[in-house]
Amino acid sequence: MPALIDHESRRHQIARIAADIIARVGLEPLTMRQIAKEAGFSTTIVTHYFANKRELLLYTYRASVANTGERVEAALQSDPCDLQGCVESLLPGDEASLRDWKVYFAFWQMALVDAEFAAEQRGQVANARSILLRVLNARARAGLNRGANLDGVARRLVVVIQGIAIHSIFDPVDWSADGQRAFLNGELQALEAAG
Amino acid sequence: MPALIDHESRRHQIARIAADIIARVGLEPLTMRQIAKEAGFSTTIVTHYFANKRELLLYTYRASVANTGERVEAALQSDPCDLQGCVESLLPGDEASLRDWKVYFAFWQMALVDAEFAAEQRGQVANARSILLRVLNARARAGLNRGANLDGVARRLVVVIQGIAIHSIFDPVDWSADGQRAFLNGELQALEAAG
Repeated sequence: MPALIDHESRRHQIARIAADIIARVGLEPLTMRQIAKEAGFSTTIVTHYFANKRELLLYTYRASVANTGERVEAALQSDPCDLQGCVESLLPGDEASLRDWKVYFAFWQMALVDAEFAAEQRGQVANARSILLRVLNARARAGLNRGANLDGVARRLVVVIQGIAIHSIFDPVDWSADGQRAFLNGELQALEAAG
Repeated sequence: MPALIDHESRRHQIARIAADIIARVGLEPLTMRQIAKEAGFSTTIVTHYFANKRELLLYTYRASVANTGERVEAALQSDPCDLQGCVESLLPGDEASLRDWKVYFAFWQMALVDAEFAAEQRGQVANARSILLRVLNARARAGLNRGANLDGVARRLVVVIQGIAIHSIFDPVDWSADGQRAFLNGELQALEAAG
């Protein structure tokens, strides 16, 4: 019996239910009991996999980060220079990515008062920056954005991505996927002009 | 006896304690009982002023927005064209503004699943945009940033402000007040160049 795989897949299943609850009703009503109820498990099984809510939220956050990573790699697979596609795949443009962003918001809420979570968040910002830098370097090698300060551009883009995400989450009409794309287009054009 | 004033000042006092608790330990441990304890009141007095945590958080959020508004007006009083000063006063650059931003984060957490809170958040974004537009118009009248799309610039700035705030809250070393200012300088110079 592949016990290790079952173990990980069970943890993943529980984290997915946690993400759904966070997206639907928020972090505060999330309890081990609520998760057990929705999963059809006993609370004892849930607490066997996650000792507490904090541990569960950390795992759920990392699962959302991994989802985002998969979307980014899918966007870059056909064209490693597709900066716009890469940035769009980092944004909350559909239901799945919106759920991941709501998990980020929940995580931030705890990271405000939890040094380990704050360090994790800094790590993810560094990670996002390095992905963008990879695309910017691929573009530079292809003769695009020549002369631009690529580190500075990557840094700016992560700031703008977080700002767009917050706007779009609370104002999905003004900041629809198309609205986000239009705004982003302007940003990336300004970058081309500067580069 | 000025009962009305006492009433408002008591509400303000409770909201300030709530903001301190949110900044120190987060939204989740915030309870009416905890507030009563820190204020030296009975829980009954606290619930006399705020029926529940939601009502209290909405009031606390508006108080933080008002604090930010006061900082902005103070920055613009000596120079209505001081865009950098205006933007800096919207950012978490000191302990008081950081506390207000932590209240915003707590509020966002609830706004994710509360339509009225989300509408309030949209209103505050519109408000921030109109303040920035006022400064941009003052600058245009003074011959600065001529030809720039001022609505678009104000929109961009609010996005960038939110992104910087998130970065600086979780990474106060890399995004110190000086670090924020340096980044912002670059942003505003790009704007001057475009304008």
